[in-house]
Amino acid sequence: MREDVIGRANVEDTPELEAYYRDLERYEAGALWTVANKIEPWQPKSQSVPVLWRYDDLRSHVLRSVELVSPEKAGRRVIYLNNPGRREVSAAVGWLYSGLQVMNPGEVASAHAHSASALRFIMEGRGAYTIVDGHKMPLGANDFVLTPNGTWHEHGVEASGLPCIWQDGLDIPFVNAMEANFYAVHPDLSQAVAYPVDDTTHAWGAPGLRPAGDKWSKQYSPLFKYQWGPTYEALSKYAKSTAGSPFDGVMMNYVNPVTGGPVMQTIGATMQMLRAGERTKAHRHTGSFIYQVAKGKGYSIIDGKRFDWKERDIFCVPSWSWHEHGNASNSEDACLFSFNDMPVIGTLGLYREEAFGDNDGYQLN
Amino acid sequence: MREDVIGRANVEDTPELEAYYRDLERYEAGALWTVANKIEPWQPKSQSVPVLWRYDDLRSHVLRSVELVSPEKAGRRVIYLNNPGRREVSAAVGWLYSGLQVMNPGEVASAHAHSASALRFIMEGRGAYTIVDGHKMPLGANDFVLTPNGTWHEHGVEASGLPCIWQDGLDIPFVNAMEANFYAVHPDLSQAVAYPVDDTTHAWGAPGLRPAGDKWSKQYSPLFKYQWGPTYEALSKYAKSTAGSPFDGVMMNYVNPVTGGPVMQTIGATMQMLRAGERTKAHRHTGSFIYQVAKGKGYSIIDGKRFDWKERDIFCVPSWSWHEHGNASNSEDACLFSFNDMPVIGTLGLYREEAFGDNDGYQLN
Amino acid sequence: MREDVIGRANVEDTPELEAYYRDLERYEAGALWTVANKIEPWQPKSQSVPVLWRYDDLRSHVLRSVELVSPEKAGRRVIYLNNPGRREVSAAVGWLYSGLQVMNPGEVASAHAHSASALRFIMEGRGAYTIVDGHKMPLGANDFVLTPNGTWHEHGVEASGLPCIWQDGLDIPFVNAMEANFYAVHPDLSQAVAYPVDDTTHAWGAPGLRPAGDKWSKQYSPLFKYQWGPTYEALSKYAKSTAGSPFDGVMMNYVNPVTGGPVMQTIGATMQMLRAGERTKAHRHTGSFIYQVAKGKGYSIIDGKRFDWKERDIFCVPSWSWHEHGNASNSEDACLFSFNDMPVIGTLGLYREEAFGDNDGYQLN
Amino acid sequence: MREDVIGRANVEDTPELEAYYRDLERYEAGALWTVANKIEPWQPKSQSVPVLWRYDDLRSHVLRSVELVSPEKAGRRVIYLNNPGRREVSAAVGWLYSGLQVMNPGEVASAHAHSASALRFIMEGRGAYTIVDGHKMPLGANDFVLTPNGTWHEHGVEASGLPCIWQDGLDIPFVNAMEANFYAVHPDLSQAVAYPVDDTTHAWGAPGLRPAGDKWSKQYSPLFKYQWGPTYEALSKYAKSTAGSPFDGVMMNYVNPVTGGPVMQTIGATMQMLRAGERTKAHRHTGSFIYQVAKGKGYSIIDGKRFDWKERDIFCVPSWSWHEHGNASNSEDACLFSFNDMPVIGTLGLYREEAFGDNDGYQLN
Repeated sequence: MREDVIGRANVEDTPELEAYYRDLERYEAGALWTVANKIEPWQPKSQSVPVLWRYDDLRSHVLRSVELVSPEKAGRRVIYLNNPGRREVSAAVGWLYSGLQVMNPGEVASAHAHSASALRFIMEGRGAYTIVDGHKMPLGANDFVLTPNGTWHEHGVEASGLPCIWQDGLDIPFVNAMEANFYAVHPDLSQAVAYPVDDTTHAWGAPGLRPAGDKWSKQYSPLFKYQWGPTYEALSKYAKSTAGSPFDGVMMNYVNPVTGGPVMQTIGATMQMLRAGERTKAHRHTGSFIYQVAKGKGYSIIDGKRFDWKERDIFCVPSWSWHEHGNASNSEDACLFSFNDMPVIGTLGLYREEAFGDNDGYQLN
Repeated sequence: MREDVIGRANVEDTPELEAYYRDLERYEAGALWTVANKIEPWQPKSQSVPVLWRYDDLRSHVLRSVELVSPEKAGRRVIYLNNPGRREVSAAVGWLYSGLQVMNPGEVASAHAHSASALRFIMEGRGAYTIVDGHKMPLGANDFVLTPNGTWHEHGVEASGLPCIWQDGLDIPFVNAMEANFYAVHPDLSQAVAYPVDDTTHAWGAPGLRPAGDKWSKQYSPLFKYQWGPTYEALSKYAKSTAGSPFDGVMMNYVNPVTGGPVMQTIGATMQMLRAGERTKAHRHTGSFIYQVAKGKGYSIIDGKRFDWKERDIFCVPSWSWHEHGNASNSEDACLFSFNDMPVIGTLGLYREEAFGDNDGYQLN
Repeated sequence: MREDVIGRANVEDTPELEAYYRDLERYEAGALWTVANKIEPWQPKSQSVPVLWRYDDLRSHVLRSVELVSPEKAGRRVIYLNNPGRREVSAAVGWLYSGLQVMNPGEVASAHAHSASALRFIMEGRGAYTIVDGHKMPLGANDFVLTPNGTWHEHGVEASGLPCIWQDGLDIPFVNAMEANFYAVHPDLSQAVAYPVDDTTHAWGAPGLRPAGDKWSKQYSPLFKYQWGPTYEALSKYAKSTAGSPFDGVMMNYVNPVTGGPVMQTIGATMQMLRAGERTKAHRHTGSFIYQVAKGKGYSIIDGKRFDWKERDIFCVPSWSWHEHGNASNSEDACLFSFNDMPVIGTLGLYREEAFGDNDGYQLN
Repeated sequence: MREDVIGRANVEDTPELEAYYRDLERYEAGALWTVANKIEPWQPKSQSVPVLWRYDDLRSHVLRSVELVSPEKAGRRVIYLNNPGRREVSAAVGWLYSGLQVMNPGEVASAHAHSASALRFIMEGRGAYTIVDGHKMPLGANDFVLTPNGTWHEHGVEASGLPCIWQDGLDIPFVNAMEANFYAVHPDLSQAVAYPVDDTTHAWGAPGLRPAGDKWSKQYSPLFKYQWGPTYEALSKYAKSTAGSPFDGVMMNYVNPVTGGPVMQTIGATMQMLRAGERTKAHRHTGSFIYQVAKGKGYSIIDGKRFDWKERDIFCVPSWSWHEHGNASNSEDACLFSFNDMPVIGTLGLYREEAFGDNDGYQLN
């Protein structure tokens, strides 16, 4: 790891030094210059690699799990996404976990709570619902729902519904890494529904308005459910008045209406629209991202490699990786849902961004 | 002003003291005990009185002003509301100004800016619009629009429209009292429309979402227009899941989506629904309020006096006045728009509230 | 009030309009154009005038009050400062009240609380103390102490002390104007000392450190006392490393250590040093200021008028008045204590500042 | 990893499932229930172990490095502390790096910048200084200095000084883990001293005061140096008025005077005093801590194991480890400096704390 650059470690091994290093080991110590260039890289090099998970590949395996295990035995019946560079911590990218969960009509998972923050993005089915601290919310395709850190939560599918599949997103690897993860099973295994169905959506899901008497002191959004209908309408309206980002098209962040900031303290989420025929330019920035294609078809070029995607496919962009997106249709818009660790990166002062300068901003691939 | 209570001033005038007081006057000084009980009251006693301004009374006079003065001569053609206790500062209540402005199709007022914060609530007509710092917004009945402190703004009615009347609300008296009011006429007398019509509504008027790349550093809301349609829908949904406030029924605050706080630094605004047959209990609190009836009919009892109102009527509730509201209909809801100085009161630590304890919470009247 | 400027009201009285105005009065209304130019001035014109209160003039009168009234009868034995333009609201400038309070050894004032925020700056004597919510603090000359809004507080002089005089500063006129002032006499007339003497100074008066477990949720500073010794030392050190402000010399704000912001929500306070021979340039800004000369002698030029001052003199600078300061000594520094309504002005977005452009920045006088 | 508890994964391997698992691997996926109990522990189990690094052991080795490598070759001449459980990431505990750096009189390290936040705590010597973004600060024993993320910084020892040793603390492992570390060598290899020596200490190191015109918008403290003298005085004063924490004695946090919050966004620092004879009770909480003994001698019991320490010794407490401290002297106080990742833990909502309930709060050891 020697570098012949002033200001960097460049020490040749000698017998005397090697003896010295062994001495240091006895005292749980080492010489910084033997690791300095490794632990202080010029710029980040992610351990994660870009991956595309095709729904056509995964769906049948997800459905097969229904026959293979019960929710009771499995805890939760989930197929999780394993980044080749992050298998050790069961992450899909960086410190973010993701998986596909499936439930049959009438099934319900036991209620639990954990320090990790969690979200769900509904992929297919009918009759899914989530209960968060007593607030029950029915969920449909492309709905986005939070189960924030510390909340009791459980999922189910109404007996009258259809088999449901959704994507889970959590920061379990991060909270584990921070050595701060706690887990609890609800003493009654399931919660009572303590409020009118969809009450937090009714109270907090209005544009430019908030309930007057409702004091909310939690650090996450009181709006737990973000429905697809109003979200797509919002993007469509915003598209009428904005040129959009050169890197991301028409992009909106899901926010905590109490603060205007991210929905949870450790996970942010975004929906973006690539207009018909739109192709964005490449940039890179710190932070790890997992995308699900909510609508349409297209492709992303990540660190020079092209990934073609269509509705329900999932892919990831590691930290500091070049990425650009294209809509493959010239008549229909395409929409990408994504979640990320940007609240961590931003809050802690670790955000940095760079535009791709060559080739008019487009990577070669 | 003597009070025979320990801890209060209770000094009898004597010739010696009177001579002493005259001495002090020569040095621009006085004896505190001669004014202490007056300037330190046990509780607030507002200089304002409750007033109901009936639209039936005012409308014809407002329309008559069209014949009497031109916008050019008048600056703005407005009939303002004069609280009998606040004539000196031209306030409708406390330090809040309000007036009814009228414009004919094709008319446009000259663009200006001031340190006072302003808002408009549309009462009738067709084709009204406001331009704020280059952002143009068409306005319909019950739409609420901001023209924040320091912004260039102007109002007009499209040539194809109908005569329009709206209520203005400003904190001119307050900013004057703070000796901080500046006024400027736009150098070109009118602004260019610099953005797509309704662009801030498209960008910031979505529930639970905000434009991803848009950094907003101003201290007022980037959402300038709050439309009646979504506002009424929001109240109707919220009504399904809340018991409501005992004092205010189903109430929502208009908010700055960037902060979740008030729309401007000195003026807050609220829309509340009194459900069919609803009658609220009385409370009082610091802060001055001006209401406009957006929908329905009913009454308010303010410091023991009943005021019957219907759509478009305006009334005020002075600081620390008991007040309660009733919907006169058993089948239709009623909606009250209001604006207030609560951001000032709250930010500065001056809020206090009290429920009416007697008679099961209802004032006698 | 007519102005022949486009965008300003310029309507001639006619018999028809006069009749119209009378009609409007019947409905508690008026025509805006009759008052618009008055209530929307081009820039602020303060109702206050600059005043210098010489301690040589006031001291004997203050001491004489000891013979004339008892604290029991007077409530508090205070000579207050009366700005000729603000007699109606008993203000020394703008909405700020100030007075000189005197107490003999062994005297104690009854404990009370009010919504107004208060401060004290000690002028002379020995043995003075203040108790705030059970925290007792001995006070010496040039010490600055807070009795924030809503706190129980009382003052006294130890029996072993000397007669003490201090300056009171409050926002009573402002809180009255906001119709939000409440007053209460302590049920026991005096408080028990519930903590070690000077405990908040010990906990919160350290540079760059705060007590680790102490959660402070009040909106005012937990550090109630700011001692002269460390304050003068701080200014002296800062003077070594700063060029200082062209308008104010070496100036530091007293702050709430929990937030780095002003000591109370409605009143800010400042200590500034004019170095030997220093003469500052003129500027003006919104906000009202009351100064006390803590050390040295010099002069201030306020709106073109020169005021010569020395230690213990008090003077005021009204909002938007030009002002500049000079140290009359070429060998000793001079220090000015001041308090102001800048937290109100700043929090509400009403601050504006302008440098004096002519004559190299110095007013003629 | 099976657990026979409802709500936990408890699936037996079968040939069919094993085949299924192999299928999933082909698609970069896995079955959650095979890893769920591992990645969702009931409570944190730190990878770090408690370690005591005795200065008597390390000092000679640190000094020997002066002969073995030059600062030019080494980059920085540092012996770093290697937690047996965290060798892979060169951390002393959790995600925190620490090392002992030595410099001879006249030596100077090249200036650089990195995304990691850094601090120094001076152990011995004379003439040490640090330059941060052009601000030079002389440093003595027990002084604490910041070199925040993104700042240019360099260290040196005056030619007239003595060999200096200090402890470095950084979050390099954390910023690496977040894949957000950037490193740059200063183009001139050293900075010009652009301000008066100690200027930020003069401006920001005062109790309850801040420079009036100095707007500071960075997210870290503008006060870079916290001197031992005022720090020890602060603790001594605070000790007079507080009972102290049952777990930590008399403890104060170093703070950013602009916000009252932690000195940097990712690293907090604390100085605590154990009074003569004081023995604290045990608690545990999330967050990783590295201590240096600034004064005195005593012991800490960490997860049941006793570590005896004296001045200059260093030890660590891993996340969620029980710990308690004792002063071994009945006549002298002992002081512990520590730094930690609490700003990360706290900002992200991951703090949890628990008192040791048995044995009157004391661990057996």
